[in-house]
Amino acid sequence: MTQARPRFGCIEAGGTKFVLGIAEAHGAVLATTRIPTTNPADTIAAVIEWFKANGPVDAIGIASFGPIDPDPASPRWGFITKTTKPDWSGTDFAGRVGRAFDVPVGFDTDVNGAALAESRWGAAQGDDVAVYFTVGTGIGGGAIINGAPIHGAQHPEMGHILPRRHPDDLDFPGVCPFHGDCFEGLVSGPAIKARWGASLSELPADHPAHKIVAWYLGQLAMSVQAVLSPRRIIFGGGVMATPGLLEAMRSEALRLAKDYVTIIIEPPALGDQAGLLGGLALAQAAFTTGQKPWV
Amino acid sequence: MTQARPRFGCIEAGGTKFVLGIAEAHGAVLATTRIPTTNPADTIAAVIEWFKANGPVDAIGIASFGPIDPDPASPRWGFITKTTKPDWSGTDFAGRVGRAFDVPVGFDTDVNGAALAESRWGAAQGDDVAVYFTVGTGIGGGAIINGAPIHGAQHPEMGHILPRRHPDDLDFPGVCPFHGDCFEGLVSGPAIKARWGASLSELPADHPAHKIVAWYLGQLAMSVQAVLSPRRIIFGGGVMATPGLLEAMRSEALRLAKDYVTIIIEPPALGDQAGLLGGLALAQAAFTTGQKPWV
Repeated sequence: MTQARPRFGCIEAGGTKFVLGIAEAHGAVLATTRIPTTNPADTIAAVIEWFKANGPVDAIGIASFGPIDPDPASPRWGFITKTTKPDWSGTDFAGRVGRAFDVPVGFDTDVNGAALAESRWGAAQGDDVAVYFTVGTGIGGGAIINGAPIHGAQHPEMGHILPRRHPDDLDFPGVCPFHGDCFEGLVSGPAIKARWGASLSELPADHPAHKIVAWYLGQLAMSVQAVLSPRRIIFGGGVMATPGLLEAMRSEALRLAKDYVTIIIEPPALGDQAGLLGGLALAQAAFTTGQKPWV
Repeated sequence: MTQARPRFGCIEAGGTKFVLGIAEAHGAVLATTRIPTTNPADTIAAVIEWFKANGPVDAIGIASFGPIDPDPASPRWGFITKTTKPDWSGTDFAGRVGRAFDVPVGFDTDVNGAALAESRWGAAQGDDVAVYFTVGTGIGGGAIINGAPIHGAQHPEMGHILPRRHPDDLDFPGVCPFHGDCFEGLVSGPAIKARWGASLSELPADHPAHKIVAWYLGQLAMSVQAVLSPRRIIFGGGVMATPGLLEAMRSEALRLAKDYVTIIIEPPALGDQAGLLGGLALAQAAFTTGQKPWV
């Protein structure tokens, strides 16, 4: 009797859409779909329905928007905690999925998942310390140390560091409902739209927004380099698709660091797939440990 | 035949003095001494002489001022790299000590060592993520993840993050030779003396310096909480001995974080011994791995 290769359910749970997939391994994605993120009950029901139709799976990994509780020892493991997203605060998410299938479930932030995927199969292979940022609807950072995502008291919230303000950008109060002008409040997609009326890629190449955004993101890279000393920092997400931005922020980061630390900034090698493959990496880890924290 | 308990050589290598010790375990420190930090040749010779007189030792741990190269795979492992301390840039330090005794040698930053000691025997026991700061001659931060110090590309340099400036403290250019007004350039001991002409504890309790320093250190704690999500952050060093400072920076950190993340700030449980016991923790780790990177 031969043992079939394990099949993994992968979930990239975003604030506007969920991407679902079944995979045997990176590169062997057997099926995928997208569903809109509506209210928790309907969205989670649609997730369960799709995996029932496309299963069976041997483990499930969820790379989710946050904040979340990723601690398997916590009674609130698997919950979305106090998010700004309407209706989702206090939602039991991963536990509900796990109970529906009774297979091991991994649950982490979208950016910890993407960082794990990039460190397994992407730009950060072999790095003992790796960081992944997404700059889009919000700004989030995930980190992998010696193969495992950082958790600690909860999980990183790197977008909420308070930056030094750019001298030509002192008046804008920022859009973060918690901190106003943290990095997320100043240079996430919605912050750029609120300040300049368009997305960064829609603004002309000589618009001062390009310099200002690159300067803030370079500062963010420098701050994270000083704390974590990563081998490289990967920047993905919608805002990073702006032509020239990655190169401009590289220069700003090195200029701010004054040659005291080396900072290597790269785009994600897995591109759009980093999120879904984050779910895969989390599913594989859960399959190994067999964790069913809801039991 | 009975095996004697291993004896460890412990070195806390500071910019103004070295503390040396022989220990069997935490709490069983058999001998200690202090020597002034002069030029590299004389200082390292004095270290070797003292251990020859007080030995033998089965492993040595060095918790050193930096920047350093702590990577056992690097040809420059054991070196002090480009420090602002005169004469010490490019000094082969740990290798010279190791070759003199031919025992395993652990080598890390003073703050990574202290963080390791606090996570073994002090305030951070059992924490999966722990951070230790010293605020004194400089500002340095070390971090332990799942029992091991962070290295990555080099090691953390947390004092060199660029803070947001306090509204009542916009003019002072800062004293960091690299960055001017990074955290170290603004609120290390020398920065406080340069700005206000006295140490913080010498200034009257109603002097605005107290509020300003607490605000910056609270901001530093918040930034590091956002990146690393530590269970707690330990703040030690000369400046932290100022009465009321720890309590004041706790309030500032929580106020800045706006209740989005929890931040727990504590003094070192090991007090002045955190540095020397950092050397002990590094010696024990080297004893286990048997590392002799100079061979």
